[in-house]
Amino acid sequence: MTDFQKTLDAIYKKAACSDARGETASYIPELADIDAHKFGMHLIDSDQRNYSVGDSNENFSIQSISKVLSLTMALGLIGEDLWKRVGVEPSGDPFNHLSLLEQENGIPRNPLINAGAIVVADILVSRLKRPKEDFLAFIRNIANDRSISYNERVAASEKATGFRNFAAAHLLKSYGNLKNDVDLVLDFYFHQCAIEMSCAQLAKTFFLYGNGGRCMQGQGYLNTHQVKRINALMLTCGFYDEAGEFAFEVGLPGKSGVGGGIVALLPNTFCVACWSPGLNKKGNSKLGMEALEKLTSDTGLSIF
Amino acid sequence: MTDFQKTLDAIYKKAACSDARGETASYIPELADIDAHKFGMHLIDSDQRNYSVGDSNENFSIQSISKVLSLTMALGLIGEDLWKRVGVEPSGDPFNHLSLLEQENGIPRNPLINAGAIVVADILVSRLKRPKEDFLAFIRNIANDRSISYNERVAASEKATGFRNFAAAHLLKSYGNLKNDVDLVLDFYFHQCAIEMSCAQLAKTFFLYGNGGRCMQGQGYLNTHQVKRINALMLTCGFYDEAGEFAFEVGLPGKSGVGGGIVALLPNTFCVACWSPGLNKKGNSKLGMEALEKLTSDTGLSIF
Amino acid sequence: MTDFQKTLDAIYKKAACSDARGETASYIPELADIDAHKFGMHLIDSDQRNYSVGDSNENFSIQSISKVLSLTMALGLIGEDLWKRVGVEPSGDPFNHLSLLEQENGIPRNPLINAGAIVVADILVSRLKRPKEDFLAFIRNIANDRSISYNERVAASEKATGFRNFAAAHLLKSYGNLKNDVDLVLDFYFHQCAIEMSCAQLAKTFFLYGNGGRCMQGQGYLNTHQVKRINALMLTCGFYDEAGEFAFEVGLPGKSGVGGGIVALLPNTFCVACWSPGLNKKGNSKLGMEALEKLTSDTGLSIF
Amino acid sequence: MTDFQKTLDAIYKKAACSDARGETASYIPELADIDAHKFGMHLIDSDQRNYSVGDSNENFSIQSISKVLSLTMALGLIGEDLWKRVGVEPSGDPFNHLSLLEQENGIPRNPLINAGAIVVADILVSRLKRPKEDFLAFIRNIANDRSISYNERVAASEKATGFRNFAAAHLLKSYGNLKNDVDLVLDFYFHQCAIEMSCAQLAKTFFLYGNGGRCMQGQGYLNTHQVKRINALMLTCGFYDEAGEFAFEVGLPGKSGVGGGIVALLPNTFCVACWSPGLNKKGNSKLGMEALEKLTSDTGLSIF
Repeated sequence: MTDFQKTLDAIYKKAACSDARGETASYIPELADIDAHKFGMHLIDSDQRNYSVGDSNENFSIQSISKVLSLTMALGLIGEDLWKRVGVEPSGDPFNHLSLLEQENGIPRNPLINAGAIVVADILVSRLKRPKEDFLAFIRNIANDRSISYNERVAASEKATGFRNFAAAHLLKSYGNLKNDVDLVLDFYFHQCAIEMSCAQLAKTFFLYGNGGRCMQGQGYLNTHQVKRINALMLTCGFYDEAGEFAFEVGLPGKSGVGGGIVALLPNTFCVACWSPGLNKKGNSKLGMEALEKLTSDTGLSIF
Repeated sequence: MTDFQKTLDAIYKKAACSDARGETASYIPELADIDAHKFGMHLIDSDQRNYSVGDSNENFSIQSISKVLSLTMALGLIGEDLWKRVGVEPSGDPFNHLSLLEQENGIPRNPLINAGAIVVADILVSRLKRPKEDFLAFIRNIANDRSISYNERVAASEKATGFRNFAAAHLLKSYGNLKNDVDLVLDFYFHQCAIEMSCAQLAKTFFLYGNGGRCMQGQGYLNTHQVKRINALMLTCGFYDEAGEFAFEVGLPGKSGVGGGIVALLPNTFCVACWSPGLNKKGNSKLGMEALEKLTSDTGLSIF
Repeated sequence: MTDFQKTLDAIYKKAACSDARGETASYIPELADIDAHKFGMHLIDSDQRNYSVGDSNENFSIQSISKVLSLTMALGLIGEDLWKRVGVEPSGDPFNHLSLLEQENGIPRNPLINAGAIVVADILVSRLKRPKEDFLAFIRNIANDRSISYNERVAASEKATGFRNFAAAHLLKSYGNLKNDVDLVLDFYFHQCAIEMSCAQLAKTFFLYGNGGRCMQGQGYLNTHQVKRINALMLTCGFYDEAGEFAFEVGLPGKSGVGGGIVALLPNTFCVACWSPGLNKKGNSKLGMEALEKLTSDTGLSIF
Repeated sequence: MTDFQKTLDAIYKKAACSDARGETASYIPELADIDAHKFGMHLIDSDQRNYSVGDSNENFSIQSISKVLSLTMALGLIGEDLWKRVGVEPSGDPFNHLSLLEQENGIPRNPLINAGAIVVADILVSRLKRPKEDFLAFIRNIANDRSISYNERVAASEKATGFRNFAAAHLLKSYGNLKNDVDLVLDFYFHQCAIEMSCAQLAKTFFLYGNGGRCMQGQGYLNTHQVKRINALMLTCGFYDEAGEFAFEVGLPGKSGVGGGIVALLPNTFCVACWSPGLNKKGNSKLGMEALEKLTSDTGLSIF
């Protein structure tokens, strides 16, 4: 049987003496100022046993990781109709999301690129009475943790500098694939990305994707069909233009965020969250990628 | 010597019995509702003699034709520094302005595509105390006509539906090539496009481009170097993706607008404005294109 | 325990009465003329037990499925140096391989698109004494079957009509990413695609990818690192622009060919090959996709 | 009246002491080895008076300048049907001809980019009995000079290294827009580009485009409609991605080649050829561009 704690300890030991930690995201002061030496990891196995190392209880900005959660909530609300407004294929072209949108008449390639997540946000804004409050409640329920919150300063920073997201939203609007007011949708979207969680909370939240759609408390959020879909999307589209590399190096469905967080899971086996703020050139956590690679190499556990 | 009146009369006669007049621009109610049977033309020769036919004194929305005027004013204000922020090459790709912007790091290909004209608008907003008032005064001075004005309803319509322009402006902002607030710049830009003129006023205004930069009253607005630059830009970029076709069929520097107006000129010979609201598939006035083709064919006057 | 034979029987029964079988590939007469009612399937479980239905012993053109085998042989010959000449990311843009090549300076996005497979063919042509004979021997050894052969008429057909492949090879050559003569490399490539196998042979050959790199006879062809890489590539890139859809609907690493074949596998569990010549709009076997979807749905066996 | 000889002398004097002469084309040894200090110019006015300076009688490889001549011959043979197979718009995207071809289904944007010129070559190969001999005879007739010839070594060099042209031709073939064998068409195309002329011969040959389609001996080769078309094409598409810059800086229809030649003309006024082998970053003759700019600035003669 796999001794996860021993593996995490080994990963932590290696990470602690790493000099090459990448650069923190520079475009938001709140993210740029994080101490690059932070490193935490939390793993929950299928029997709900918990393992952790380092700064695993410290909060960080989950950023794009939130896209999986908003997608989950939207699927619960409107079901497979969602796929009429957003695709399921890898984008293969991270730097030209808007070009792609133009080529494909306003249907984003998948829900994990920004334009796709903005469409998902639009769906939530249409369906929820109080979108920001309701979405937060949804996540708190999954994690069974009332302390999860938005960081309002991060949300405000993103609003003030997120010109490409404004461009994407207006372009979606020009194609009729954004129903609500751009400012309203992006206010929701910037908040969604500004949710803060610790590795422990993140692992608890994403436990459901390795557990057939049921959270740790047993409540069902997705059917098995939908869980498979989301896991497939995380594997093929979860790491920007490093998706292929991650699929190979790590071999797990997962999602990263520019805050330095990564969450990944092996169905029916474990869910793991990792955090280290320094990013590699592709925008994924440098030590986080190395940690997950070591985890699957040392344990021999991956989907392939 | 060319009998311009006779030529205009022949063009008018032919246009009057034309059935295939194209479609008026549909995206703005104010433009869509114009009577498609309107047709006017006004020509001024180098001796300032005037010739006209049809609805040559009726006002219409000059739309993109205004881009030449804002460029003229901006060149007067900041000179050749303008070319650091916008290129001079044909775009060759009308449907993917935003893709192009992404490929070229936020430097629009030329000042006559929307993204380029928005950068020019940004320059005017930076430099003018009261941008909208000052720009209108500039045009009124050139035309020597106080009656030229904005159509506020058209400006408001464009603001309400101009999502692609909002997308372009935000994308420019993300590349640092828009200095002012997006809403402020686009408010100016939408007003600029909503200027109304008649063919007669338009021909008077554009007289300067065929007259070495001096308007009909003799005041200089551009040096000969700058006039050559603008004429070259009109010839290579003035007609969206029909620029090559226009260069060939008509063989004059010119500029069209989705309001159905076209203005063109032969240096030191004549300046002509034409208006017919129905557009061809490329977005240029259908009868206007035919009229200018007939004008240059019948008179043998073109730059080639 | 899963009763694979019962599942295959159910799939066959459903496929037999299917009216919508798609269209056979039209660009090669040899492929177009195949009877669209053919349907076969062969599955081998991890204990090397065999299950089959329908035309599982009938030969068909494996086409792009061969790209996985040439990649396997090339990796064995030059190891990870291969990745200097070809990427590992999904292409996301099936219709514009050449555009992509231009954008990325001659490094194909992955080895399973045509341009990438041509680079792999170039590697084999450089390294093998008698490329066609040696490659065939390699496959015969894996499958433990001397009867596997090239269909020369299919190879000749592809040579006569494969203008896009010639274009891709010359473009690669212009970037210095093709070392041998274009005609030589493409002669090998067209032969490689013209290999014929039955479902039974294909399942036996691909058994190694679900068995840690060891074929049914126990010989090792790839290390576990390399097997993981290839499985990740099949999952993210194995189905043209339907990769995301396949990852979701089926949830297995796999590869399709325009001859109507599909092979897929669940590591340490089973390897399955399916054949039905009619293609869906994306170029993958229509009934084959449905069969594999039913297989994973009915058995609950997938990587997600 | 303009004293052309005095102007040419001034240009020559300035060019002679220029240090920054650009780089000769590197991809063909025969072009790379040319002495970068060569500079010649020849001008013929509308009264057929000749003016020249420097190495105006020395032969050089006309390269892409030949595209105007092959287009002229093809228009004479099949007339306006030619425009069904090639467009008339600026490409705006010099580095991605193949991408553009894919986007536009095999119809090259214009006849002066390589793909377009290859289609024109295909037309000539279809229509001429002995394409290479007949095309050379055509040019010799226009220039009234039997000494004009192909440089076989240059043609062979281009054949050996012209992989992008082979890629373009095969891509055209895949779209059905190349009727003859690729090798046959490209053999003609590489020869066409390998024609050698002096500035004096080039100016004599292109005299017809400023003379309503009639050569210096009075024979008509194009009607006025066709001359206008070709002049418009030269102005909008004659200088790769520097077309807009040339239109502005020089303001004449013209065409450049990577051999360092440029030819340009002002209808009914003059035709001028210039040669200096060093190229600027856009691939046009550096001193040649400066020379023509000075010519039009000093004389005040341009189309704008």
